[in-house]
Amino acid sequence: MTARTAAAQRERGKADAAREKRAALIALDWGTTSLRAYLFDAAGEVLDTRISTAGIMNLPVPAEEGGFDAAFDEACGVWLAQASALPVLAAGMVGSAQGWVSAPYVETPAGEDALVAGIVKVRAACGVELAVVPGVLEPGALPNVMRGEETQIFGALGAQADAQAAHASRPAVQAEARTAAQVSAQTVAQTALIGLPGTHAKWVVVEGASIARFYTFMTGEVYAALTAHTILGRTMKRPVVPDTAAFLRGVTVAREHGCAGVLATAFSTRTLGLTDQLAADEQPDYLSGLLIGHELAGLEAVLSRRDVELAACAPRLIGTDALCERYRLALAQFGCGGAQIVHRATERGLWRIAVRAGLVVGAGQTA
Amino acid sequence: MTARTAAAQRERGKADAAREKRAALIALDWGTTSLRAYLFDAAGEVLDTRISTAGIMNLPVPAEEGGFDAAFDEACGVWLAQASALPVLAAGMVGSAQGWVSAPYVETPAGEDALVAGIVKVRAACGVELAVVPGVLEPGALPNVMRGEETQIFGALGAQADAQAAHASRPAVQAEARTAAQVSAQTVAQTALIGLPGTHAKWVVVEGASIARFYTFMTGEVYAALTAHTILGRTMKRPVVPDTAAFLRGVTVAREHGCAGVLATAFSTRTLGLTDQLAADEQPDYLSGLLIGHELAGLEAVLSRRDVELAACAPRLIGTDALCERYRLALAQFGCGGAQIVHRATERGLWRIAVRAGLVVGAGQTA
Repeated sequence: MTARTAAAQRERGKADAAREKRAALIALDWGTTSLRAYLFDAAGEVLDTRISTAGIMNLPVPAEEGGFDAAFDEACGVWLAQASALPVLAAGMVGSAQGWVSAPYVETPAGEDALVAGIVKVRAACGVELAVVPGVLEPGALPNVMRGEETQIFGALGAQADAQAAHASRPAVQAEARTAAQVSAQTVAQTALIGLPGTHAKWVVVEGASIARFYTFMTGEVYAALTAHTILGRTMKRPVVPDTAAFLRGVTVAREHGCAGVLATAFSTRTLGLTDQLAADEQPDYLSGLLIGHELAGLEAVLSRRDVELAACAPRLIGTDALCERYRLALAQFGCGGAQIVHRATERGLWRIAVRAGLVVGAGQTA
Repeated sequence: MTARTAAAQRERGKADAAREKRAALIALDWGTTSLRAYLFDAAGEVLDTRISTAGIMNLPVPAEEGGFDAAFDEACGVWLAQASALPVLAAGMVGSAQGWVSAPYVETPAGEDALVAGIVKVRAACGVELAVVPGVLEPGALPNVMRGEETQIFGALGAQADAQAAHASRPAVQAEARTAAQVSAQTVAQTALIGLPGTHAKWVVVEGASIARFYTFMTGEVYAALTAHTILGRTMKRPVVPDTAAFLRGVTVAREHGCAGVLATAFSTRTLGLTDQLAADEQPDYLSGLLIGHELAGLEAVLSRRDVELAACAPRLIGTDALCERYRLALAQFGCGGAQIVHRATERGLWRIAVRAGLVVGAGQTA
């Protein structure tokens, strides 16, 4: 062992010791294709993160041969070796019928207390008990389901509450603006619109502090299927950088000429190409704009049936920055200029639910 | 040679002779994945049909190595050996940029004379000249194109004219009903709605005797992509016989709860399954009903912008019987009960255009 590696090892030992002393919670965002594990301290700060591809449909060994245990050990074994008594919370597809344990859906309207009451526990082979957050079901003619997003949503609501608290505590703000901030907080707490773009994009209406109703749009998955498995993909060329103008053109077409529906407008990707009005490398972003435009037009329609105007909303967006930015641009085309991207909604939500469930003492701020 | 084979050969020889004497036209419906060749007599009756998979994207040898000639010889060589001077007409993708010869689109409004004027000729290696019917383009913000359907449409219009002529010529009808029939014929001639279900379903508005405008819905191709390449297909089980109740349920959902659009309602295939409200073997027809329902809702919306009520239309449907029957059922859900299936529209259209182009003398009825 060289002096350098010995020093590095001492350093690592000190870090481990500090972490062991401070670690308060392990929380998992365990989806279909990935597992993200977070180690929190007692103040809700993330000390360490581990990301693996061991989603529930991609376990290192089959589920019936202990695949969940294997994935959990791989992700969290090091942390548990140092602090085996850490509480563990998990959200996402791990609680589905195909997951480690089935945590049946909680029905809308679903607040945090309902989620906490619906937590189901499963004991790992190593003896550690995991608390699994249930998904949410909106019953009806067209039922909707979510698993994992409920946790992000409460994370986003927490983020806003923190931001408002921070704002209201500024001395200059306190005197004249507190009333306005309180009113604003109250309004937003009463009705909020949260978008979660992606494979199965969700738009969620939060009323009071409960998930009141939500809509799922298969936008991301349909885009992938159309580009890879229909005639539209054959003439496409992926541009070096995303083509924002082509994207916005698609959004506008969906919004202004979309009344026949996306089954009809999608074909324009081809016919505009055939008539030399849309270059091959504009077609991917044009089609993306079309689909997202139809999603937002559909959202606008369902909101308006309840007298909510999309343009008057200030939606919060949860997802990757690049995709949220696309949605922010598209929303602006619908007159909705106040969209904001929420960061670290998953970590915040996991921490918040853990506190509410009594797994940790929630003295600190959220993550 | 036995007496029996000698007799059979004589018989065949007689048939060949009769055919040679009577054959007046070869007409081709040459699409992307198939080639259908028809041999007509001078009265427009089909004497013989040959069907091959040698569509323009599926030629026996590459196009640059004489693939079109090879496919043409394979389909029509026997006929041409007996009557090399037969005129040949072809419609469909054979006239596209990827076809044997490019027959540029004719723009809407497009009547038969415009199609005939747009015919482009190509000479085969064997010396025979083919007349290729152009497609139709509707320019605009969302351009639309067709190739092959224009021929079927004029075939369907011809079929109706024949039916009306036959009806009006009945003695009992002549006296009291001729005026009514004339009025009806005139009305229908002024505006007709024709549906061509399939991979890229088309709905065509004919005004006067011209294709005025049309809409393409990617219904068939999107259905195939969704079932084969998205999460919706994973829980599906194809039923032994089509499930009409599940199909109509999908149509009704699209019609009554479809305002968020098909990107949203498609997900109900999964959520109704997850909540035990839709069995695995109901899911394929339910999704089919959803997509066709959204197509018809889109059609209803674009028609209504021009004050045409879908429910008041008596559309004609061109396509396979099973698919047209599904559309007939779906149209009835939209209050449109008068849809009729047109048979042999392709053959009728090819004959009609050949007559109009002077390739044959149009003494007889259409095929």
